[in-house]
Amino acid sequence: MSYDLFYWPGIQGRGEFVRLALEDAGATYRDVAREPHGMKEMQQLLAQHAPLRAVFAPPFLRDGDRLISQVAAILLHLGPRLGLAPVDEAQSLYAHQIQLTISDIVNEVHDTHHPISNALYYEDQKDAAKARSKAFRTERIPKYLKWFEAILAENPAGSRQLVGLTTSYVDLSLFQLVTGLGYAFPRTMKKALKTTPRVADLTAAIAERPRLSAYLASDRRVAFNEEGIFRHYPELDGA
Amino acid sequence: MSYDLFYWPGIQGRGEFVRLALEDAGATYRDVAREPHGMKEMQQLLAQHAPLRAVFAPPFLRDGDRLISQVAAILLHLGPRLGLAPVDEAQSLYAHQIQLTISDIVNEVHDTHHPISNALYYEDQKDAAKARSKAFRTERIPKYLKWFEAILAENPAGSRQLVGLTTSYVDLSLFQLVTGLGYAFPRTMKKALKTTPRVADLTAAIAERPRLSAYLASDRRVAFNEEGIFRHYPELDGA
Repeated sequence: MSYDLFYWPGIQGRGEFVRLALEDAGATYRDVAREPHGMKEMQQLLAQHAPLRAVFAPPFLRDGDRLISQVAAILLHLGPRLGLAPVDEAQSLYAHQIQLTISDIVNEVHDTHHPISNALYYEDQKDAAKARSKAFRTERIPKYLKWFEAILAENPAGSRQLVGLTTSYVDLSLFQLVTGLGYAFPRTMKKALKTTPRVADLTAAIAERPRLSAYLASDRRVAFNEEGIFRHYPELDGA
Repeated sequence: MSYDLFYWPGIQGRGEFVRLALEDAGATYRDVAREPHGMKEMQQLLAQHAPLRAVFAPPFLRDGDRLISQVAAILLHLGPRLGLAPVDEAQSLYAHQIQLTISDIVNEVHDTHHPISNALYYEDQKDAAKARSKAFRTERIPKYLKWFEAILAENPAGSRQLVGLTTSYVDLSLFQLVTGLGYAFPRTMKKALKTTPRVADLTAAIAERPRLSAYLASDRRVAFNEEGIFRHYPELDGA
């Protein structure tokens, strides 16, 4: 089985949540927009509104003749196919709910540096970005991390995964979220993770999974940078 | 079958997307937090982190011993049970993708009046709200409406529903989105809907569905107000 992933080249962004699942599972996939002429192919699909194939924005996945967009929907589809989702239906929907909360957080992270408009440069919305980041750092990050910590603490199968007995895509996504927040807000996260040791331990453990650690060390992993979702602007980290 | 819906009383908010599906289907449900002592029950469930039951925020649904949160996940669960979802698996996931895009839009609508922080009053972030709303009105609303219009235009079964042959929860959600935007940004929407007649027609048709029109005229429908997601501040509508 081979998949085609479509996402903006040059950034990790939202596409990375899908990429991590594909890489961890050792799936065969094309990262289309990073190939020659791949951007053109992606743009054509985005402009197309064929039945059942309307995509609002990348990332999207092509699986056979299907196009699937929205990170959480892609992972809902891919999870069982990659062996990275709970089999039980209630657990599966629960994992999806956690993933949807991660999507909400990612939207908030984006807005820490772009609180006014995507069409404006960061520099042109910097004051609002500072104010929004302060609220995000002091109110939202602690609340979210505490929520994940509680889920891990209450998992009857142990706190090595969020849902059920084995690692699922939602653990990989939490790894990406925590790693990205650590890049963007290192001072804040260093302190915050001390109070959520299970989240810190899970993040460290995911990074050591064999296929994932090989991927993270490869040039397939785009480096964090100031074009993506997670951006390091020291002034937004309360420095 | 009876359901328990948990959402903040006094506003339509995100809970309304679930309520519309329950009402349109004629389902039996309790709107728990609007009952005496219901808020206490909701707060207790929010504070609880039992396995598979962690909820980040309302709305959430109790179905038997299950708690399900996140609007799109609730509707993914409820849709087939209420006869308001496509039966076909690909169509079902496609409807979910559209719903997830609606969730993203709802987050953006919230941020038009709260671009900096939920913990601040609107009045204390009004300048940023004006700037963000201008971008939302001029860049985002047209882009989103055009996207829905294209989906309706391309549905081989006709433009009376977004997916497949019959009305699904995602049509009800589009009705709520368009109606809410019409409340918040009447000037903008009056103009915008002229260029997306299929979206306008769908919205009007949904409002006339027998159970839904009875609901909309009842006191179970909370009126739009300036505590909810969709708020009418004339200064944000470019007035």
